[in-house]
Amino acid sequence: MKQLTIIKIGGNVIDNSEKLHQFLLDFTALPGDKILVHGGGKIATELGSSLGIEPKMVDGRRITDIETLRIVTMVYGGLINKNMVAQLQAKGCNAIGLSGADGNVIQAVKRPVGKIDYGFVGDLNESSVSVKTLDVLLKNDLIPVLCAITHDGDTQLLNTNADTIASAVAVAMSREYETRLVYCFEKKGVLRDVDDDLSLVAEIRRNDFETLQAEGVVSGGMIPKLYNAFEAIRQGVKAVYIGKADELPQIDINGFGTRLID
Amino acid sequence: MKQLTIIKIGGNVIDNSEKLHQFLLDFTALPGDKILVHGGGKIATELGSSLGIEPKMVDGRRITDIETLRIVTMVYGGLINKNMVAQLQAKGCNAIGLSGADGNVIQAVKRPVGKIDYGFVGDLNESSVSVKTLDVLLKNDLIPVLCAITHDGDTQLLNTNADTIASAVAVAMSREYETRLVYCFEKKGVLRDVDDDLSLVAEIRRNDFETLQAEGVVSGGMIPKLYNAFEAIRQGVKAVYIGKADELPQIDINGFGTRLID
Repeated sequence: MKQLTIIKIGGNVIDNSEKLHQFLLDFTALPGDKILVHGGGKIATELGSSLGIEPKMVDGRRITDIETLRIVTMVYGGLINKNMVAQLQAKGCNAIGLSGADGNVIQAVKRPVGKIDYGFVGDLNESSVSVKTLDVLLKNDLIPVLCAITHDGDTQLLNTNADTIASAVAVAMSREYETRLVYCFEKKGVLRDVDDDLSLVAEIRRNDFETLQAEGVVSGGMIPKLYNAFEAIRQGVKAVYIGKADELPQIDINGFGTRLID
Repeated sequence: MKQLTIIKIGGNVIDNSEKLHQFLLDFTALPGDKILVHGGGKIATELGSSLGIEPKMVDGRRITDIETLRIVTMVYGGLINKNMVAQLQAKGCNAIGLSGADGNVIQAVKRPVGKIDYGFVGDLNESSVSVKTLDVLLKNDLIPVLCAITHDGDTQLLNTNADTIASAVAVAMSREYETRLVYCFEKKGVLRDVDDDLSLVAEIRRNDFETLQAEGVVSGGMIPKLYNAFEAIRQGVKAVYIGKADELPQIDINGFGTRLID
């Protein structure tokens, strides 16, 4: 089976042009098949305030109303995605920028209205990802760069969490590839002591997860992150990595961040 | 040789949601390989004014400064392109939206600064269009939907005339396909009497072009339009059509607008 790396970057890389430049160089240099998934960053919020549209919150949750959807479609799908692709092309990576609507790559379901109406937010399921389209692109040396916009197959674009997209893509592509999923975030990985980079936990097996929770090594926002990662592994992803974008070149040498395996 | 139809639509279709819906239905129904190229419309100008950015003009020419480039990248590449693709997907057309940077589909050269500095505007040449990438997509039943944003191969996105993109794509694809190029605009085609739709000139051969100019049948803005069309024909395009979007379904039955041939 061919290897495929799915990498997700977020605002901490996107909002910093030097970091982004270096990351895109490293991404280009990474051998083998790969897919990039990017989140939003500050630009959408900034454009919103320039237009007098403030982020909508209900019970502390962010809501995607129709105006916010317009903005993220412009910023994620247009401004960020196209500039990132143009930069990758200049570095010799034959990137192709996609929303979930393009080639029906990711079809989502609008989140049902419960206690909270999240608005135009899309949730994913097992059949959301078009393995066929991504496979056609990869086989023809086109590198997919996915933004966090999906569609419902019935004309509606939807705002979708980029972490979730990366995970769904990795799981779906596991049918055809040996996949690894890389989350770049602001920290070096899972740390025994959050203030000490040397306390990095280099590897976590699924069976260790509960122990680490009991010990308090994994806590707070890291719990759902790791839970979702192990869920992806259970569904076929070979390994999930969580670490700092600037250490990506180390992934096949000394390892990258915290490696989660079965 | 397989037939390929390249269709360009502009603001008069894009700005009218009912017209756009009908056009996208007709585009979906059109048999055979096809590529859609779309221009901008009013939305970019409206977003600009909401942000307090007025269209920049020098000597009556529109200039693409860096702020305008940001706006057209968001509106053409994001808002319009992604919504159009989502609508096509809902109608059963496996559309894939692209800027020129995506898959390096259209690489342009920033227009040299002469008497006027047009800013971030891209001009095309013979090697601008990646026939290979478009061919890969078409052969895999993906229908390219191109917005009027290109790149220079060195990280810079550029604003490029959609008519020019459509023509360059048709010329380049003529190496592999029997191409026809369809321009949808607000009129029924070339009219002997501009106020009388029944005076449509159904066909113009290259040799007739001068005569029609001498007779005054072709005048004003129509002269460069037809000149460019015949130039595309000289470079390998089989036929160019100029007509009204809502008559597209007639193209293989009673003909569409004015048909220009060698």
